[in-house]
Amino acid sequence: MSSEFGKLLRVSVFGQSHGTAIGVIMDGLPAGEAIDREILGAFLARRKPGNSLLSTQRRETDAPIFLSGLEEGVTCGAPLCAVIENRDQRSADYAKLTDIPRPGHADYTAWAKWKGQADLRGGGHFSGRLTAPLCIAGGIAKQILARKGIFVGAHLLSVGQETDAPFPLFPTAELLESMGKKPFPVLDDKAGERMEKAILEARQEGDSLGGVIQCAAIGLPAGLGEPMFGGVENRLAAALFGIPAIKGVEFGAGFAAARLRGSENNDPFLWEGGRVTAASNHAGGILGGITSGMPLVLQAAVKPTPSISRPQQTVSLSRKEGAELEIHGRHDPCIAHRAVPVVEAVTALVLLDMRLEGNHGTF
Amino acid sequence: MSSEFGKLLRVSVFGQSHGTAIGVIMDGLPAGEAIDREILGAFLARRKPGNSLLSTQRRETDAPIFLSGLEEGVTCGAPLCAVIENRDQRSADYAKLTDIPRPGHADYTAWAKWKGQADLRGGGHFSGRLTAPLCIAGGIAKQILARKGIFVGAHLLSVGQETDAPFPLFPTAELLESMGKKPFPVLDDKAGERMEKAILEARQEGDSLGGVIQCAAIGLPAGLGEPMFGGVENRLAAALFGIPAIKGVEFGAGFAAARLRGSENNDPFLWEGGRVTAASNHAGGILGGITSGMPLVLQAAVKPTPSISRPQQTVSLSRKEGAELEIHGRHDPCIAHRAVPVVEAVTALVLLDMRLEGNHGTF
Amino acid sequence: MSSEFGKLLRVSVFGQSHGTAIGVIMDGLPAGEAIDREILGAFLARRKPGNSLLSTQRRETDAPIFLSGLEEGVTCGAPLCAVIENRDQRSADYAKLTDIPRPGHADYTAWAKWKGQADLRGGGHFSGRLTAPLCIAGGIAKQILARKGIFVGAHLLSVGQETDAPFPLFPTAELLESMGKKPFPVLDDKAGERMEKAILEARQEGDSLGGVIQCAAIGLPAGLGEPMFGGVENRLAAALFGIPAIKGVEFGAGFAAARLRGSENNDPFLWEGGRVTAASNHAGGILGGITSGMPLVLQAAVKPTPSISRPQQTVSLSRKEGAELEIHGRHDPCIAHRAVPVVEAVTALVLLDMRLEGNHGTF
Amino acid sequence: MSSEFGKLLRVSVFGQSHGTAIGVIMDGLPAGEAIDREILGAFLARRKPGNSLLSTQRRETDAPIFLSGLEEGVTCGAPLCAVIENRDQRSADYAKLTDIPRPGHADYTAWAKWKGQADLRGGGHFSGRLTAPLCIAGGIAKQILARKGIFVGAHLLSVGQETDAPFPLFPTAELLESMGKKPFPVLDDKAGERMEKAILEARQEGDSLGGVIQCAAIGLPAGLGEPMFGGVENRLAAALFGIPAIKGVEFGAGFAAARLRGSENNDPFLWEGGRVTAASNHAGGILGGITSGMPLVLQAAVKPTPSISRPQQTVSLSRKEGAELEIHGRHDPCIAHRAVPVVEAVTALVLLDMRLEGNHGTF
Repeated sequence: MSSEFGKLLRVSVFGQSHGTAIGVIMDGLPAGEAIDREILGAFLARRKPGNSLLSTQRRETDAPIFLSGLEEGVTCGAPLCAVIENRDQRSADYAKLTDIPRPGHADYTAWAKWKGQADLRGGGHFSGRLTAPLCIAGGIAKQILARKGIFVGAHLLSVGQETDAPFPLFPTAELLESMGKKPFPVLDDKAGERMEKAILEARQEGDSLGGVIQCAAIGLPAGLGEPMFGGVENRLAAALFGIPAIKGVEFGAGFAAARLRGSENNDPFLWEGGRVTAASNHAGGILGGITSGMPLVLQAAVKPTPSISRPQQTVSLSRKEGAELEIHGRHDPCIAHRAVPVVEAVTALVLLDMRLEGNHGTF
Repeated sequence: MSSEFGKLLRVSVFGQSHGTAIGVIMDGLPAGEAIDREILGAFLARRKPGNSLLSTQRRETDAPIFLSGLEEGVTCGAPLCAVIENRDQRSADYAKLTDIPRPGHADYTAWAKWKGQADLRGGGHFSGRLTAPLCIAGGIAKQILARKGIFVGAHLLSVGQETDAPFPLFPTAELLESMGKKPFPVLDDKAGERMEKAILEARQEGDSLGGVIQCAAIGLPAGLGEPMFGGVENRLAAALFGIPAIKGVEFGAGFAAARLRGSENNDPFLWEGGRVTAASNHAGGILGGITSGMPLVLQAAVKPTPSISRPQQTVSLSRKEGAELEIHGRHDPCIAHRAVPVVEAVTALVLLDMRLEGNHGTF
Repeated sequence: MSSEFGKLLRVSVFGQSHGTAIGVIMDGLPAGEAIDREILGAFLARRKPGNSLLSTQRRETDAPIFLSGLEEGVTCGAPLCAVIENRDQRSADYAKLTDIPRPGHADYTAWAKWKGQADLRGGGHFSGRLTAPLCIAGGIAKQILARKGIFVGAHLLSVGQETDAPFPLFPTAELLESMGKKPFPVLDDKAGERMEKAILEARQEGDSLGGVIQCAAIGLPAGLGEPMFGGVENRLAAALFGIPAIKGVEFGAGFAAARLRGSENNDPFLWEGGRVTAASNHAGGILGGITSGMPLVLQAAVKPTPSISRPQQTVSLSRKEGAELEIHGRHDPCIAHRAVPVVEAVTALVLLDMRLEGNHGTF
Repeated sequence: MSSEFGKLLRVSVFGQSHGTAIGVIMDGLPAGEAIDREILGAFLARRKPGNSLLSTQRRETDAPIFLSGLEEGVTCGAPLCAVIENRDQRSADYAKLTDIPRPGHADYTAWAKWKGQADLRGGGHFSGRLTAPLCIAGGIAKQILARKGIFVGAHLLSVGQETDAPFPLFPTAELLESMGKKPFPVLDDKAGERMEKAILEARQEGDSLGGVIQCAAIGLPAGLGEPMFGGVENRLAAALFGIPAIKGVEFGAGFAAARLRGSENNDPFLWEGGRVTAASNHAGGILGGITSGMPLVLQAAVKPTPSISRPQQTVSLSRKEGAELEIHGRHDPCIAHRAVPVVEAVTALVLLDMRLEGNHGTF
């Protein structure tokens, strides 16, 4: 099992960056759900490159073709398969990468795993391009969740040294949805401008930046998730680390909680509006792996894009010695902003899976 | 699925803090592995409370009783079941917790999940006491891994505001093993003294502290793990979030990588000693979810113990109104140091599972 | 994964025939379900040996001890662990079985799997004694299903050459329950007498008999199960083949359907009593892997007990040559009648798991 | 989970009989395996309809298009996706099937599951057409297994009342391979002629026939499979019941074993040619769920095709009353012969998965 996740809703991604087509299967999707292609297209546009100098100049056409699972635009219960054709299947830019692994990429580990049977890029399956089918699946999940009053949204909490404001204690559906409508998904547009400037600077220097994405979900009932290893955190983390370049996942206060005292970190419960709520949300809406009904909040750390144009120290696997590598071609100086919808997509898929499973704590 | 994890090696934990017994099944353990009970006992002693004022004063007897899976001290291939009897099954300290959920605990979420059918503690299954059987399983995994040259060790990277030095670039087996022999698992004993002092201060103030645990594994071959959702990071994170109080997991530079530039974060490959190695390890030994042969390094954030003796704001679920809660009894002012062997245990279990699966990249 | 099955309800069996204790974990059991120990004890008594000359003369005490998962006799949501102590842990009868594999047993295959690390019986994990914890789990599942109007019952359809009548088209809950109250579970007591006589004859001849068990479940809603590989048949068969000695599983007319014509085998739908029903049930209540609302009917073939007292041809694994084996001691001349409650147990566990999952065809 | 199976090798099928395309993902395939398209094409041709009057007259073009997973005809480690385009996407023959469920089909159960959201055929996902992608995957698995000396072959053991000879005790690779080269896959061609005649007769009468398929695999090492629920039988049965129309699965003597005595059914072990073998194979090569090294032998029962042209009794779901149905169009009077390669395909996929997992009984 590798390019799959999920329990009742199974998501399986396939494709290589430079193959015929890439795609996704969603198996276990409920029937009777209309898919709005316009909303889906707008969602997919958010991760597309080529929007500006902030991203790679490669143009992708991410219009999904649905091979199965729909009857007149509505899910029919059978597995849904959507594919995206690759226009630009084999680029000369990658030709020299069969012997010299790029630092920070999976070239060397793919070579070790597949005994050099595949090219250095593991057939290109590690490409960020594979997040496009993930977004198709996640975009569909978001539409279905929204009908149940569950909204998922994310923004850039930081890029390099620049930071955005965190989500408020109770983000509204409007706030979460608005992130997707901005060209640069931040709460504080001034911070966004500083981030954009930092990315352009890194680009000019042939370098790259990373960032932190904050994602929230509202409308989840209390009681979702299982104790210990079947909790919401376990399942979200397991899936989120499947997004290329993610190197850390935390919930609520996360690593910062480790520096707080119990009296600061514990969220006081309140009885408000006929239900239990809390005065703070250091727990990120999850206690003991189970949702509390407070907003679910998580952060994911995106490392700086490993593809940089500066000369780098590496090795030649054939000559068994050190080598220097200079990568030319089209690269993203930062992928954190493009990864924002991907984090939303994966979060939505896990939450839909858990919501389908329901709270079977009692029968 | 909830209190279980693993693929070829399945680990299933059962028990409640105040029930008859707690225990663990290991299903899929290879046959022919001798278990050294003395080494296992020393490992279990590391998480035991009652060692000092730094922990709860409750005494536990964690001597495991093996119900199955061994023939004359050697694994026989059948599922191994080990249990620990609870001496002290029902404490008056917890008697009043049937209506008023403790902030920061799973009391309320367990109530929401099980519709109040269980007591507020979900039958006590969320207890840190359940980490004892996890350590039995993990201690066994560590012994088996060591025979293959794989060593797992962890230390406290921080407690509250106090920080230890990180592991060196290439931690040795001796260094990793030495952590388990110290009364307080840190690299820099001066830092350890500051941490202990901080914990005692928090205790006197009726408060608690969290911390960050750093865990490393050496001796792993390159090529373990599957792309995307079956990677080493996915599987480790999924299991580590099963340890109570863990709120964040990161690999290598993790969240710090998000503040680095690509030129800083990329680990230059080197050809040394007839093999590929690297000049730095921001990747934590994992690229594209697959091991690189460099040491695997991860950090896990432990929140401050939610049980504090200060009065706290909460609610009465029966009266449907706010309430104040003061918890008396035996509490850990910090569990981060006791969680160090638990993080080792879970890491060892996941790595043994992956190592059993092997690198089936080629046939 | 080996001694486990289930999706939302995970059942994990452990123990060896001659170890300290055997037992079972049920993880994912809904909270709030009272367990009637008397009914459970009566269910367990049905598989117990030593009732008559029809079974082995070995006495077992199958009183389950609940280590976790219950609060005052009611499930609490935490994993339930129940164990049975082995009184009689190491029998001299088995002493000589370390070199000479018994024909028809797993001795040789366990030796091949575990490279001779375990004794020839794979640590005794293949023993029919392990069906006792399965029956504890299944007995609990039956009680919970009955509260939802789902009843599971089984009878001996044949023993050797003797056959019972099949279940009627619409077995009632009373009929299904009545099977458990008979000393010999058949619909036609005359057939039962012939079966008992045949078993006693085989016993006198130092030989053994097999049989076919028919199991039915009523009260299932239409729409349970997933297409293709997640169907009710797939999941039931996967679990039923875990019962030692089961060599065939069929649904409805099963193998007999292969000899019918479509016009005979198709079950005509009827509209009766405000709902869809059928004039026959060759499908065994399952079409396309999904329940139709008709009674679920399956048959499982039990091979003759391999332990016979006649001399048998086998090999010596150490001397690498042929050998003759004569097994003395206590053996069942037939286990088919004792396997009847085991088939019920496994069927009930799978159905409870599927029922908990529900029909998530729509959201 | 529904249209998927496998552990290390995951197979996921998608598509509807009358959608844009149908296909399959194989995730976990080892890298470096060349796929011979000619051999694959010949394998696919075996299940194709339209070869004679024995099958439906519908023409299918089953030429697979590989979207991912191959580099120059060799597997690269990334998930392999192959699709088949549907030429003939929406047939008028099916137009009237939205209200009146066909007896013996999944129409009614799909309606019950998906609450009528899909058409009566669950979007056509239950179609036998979906066995084409299964055969692509299985044909690839067969090629990889053959390189390891493992051969899988099947024949028609019976059609209606006509029976073929069973496989000999030790079928050779040549014998197994030869079945695929015959227009009608039987050992005894005279029996085959009788079967063909019976099918044509059923066709003329507007009726249909079922059959039994016997499948064997040779070259498997002893020691594959896990005890109890992870055995070879469990996993093969779970997958085989995913083939439409399969209603029974048995191993070795199967249901016939239930009529034998232990002294007849036990397979005497022999020491021959430096290894353990057996004088008979009632166990079908599996003892305790684990392979013995003897040929693996199983039988699968295929029900008569439910699509018959005779008038049948059914209901109108909208009018909530009885109805009569007459189905016109292109139907298979028997699918058992076309299901022969499908049984081989699924068997090969499960065996490749288990072989990749290897015998991890010891470390």
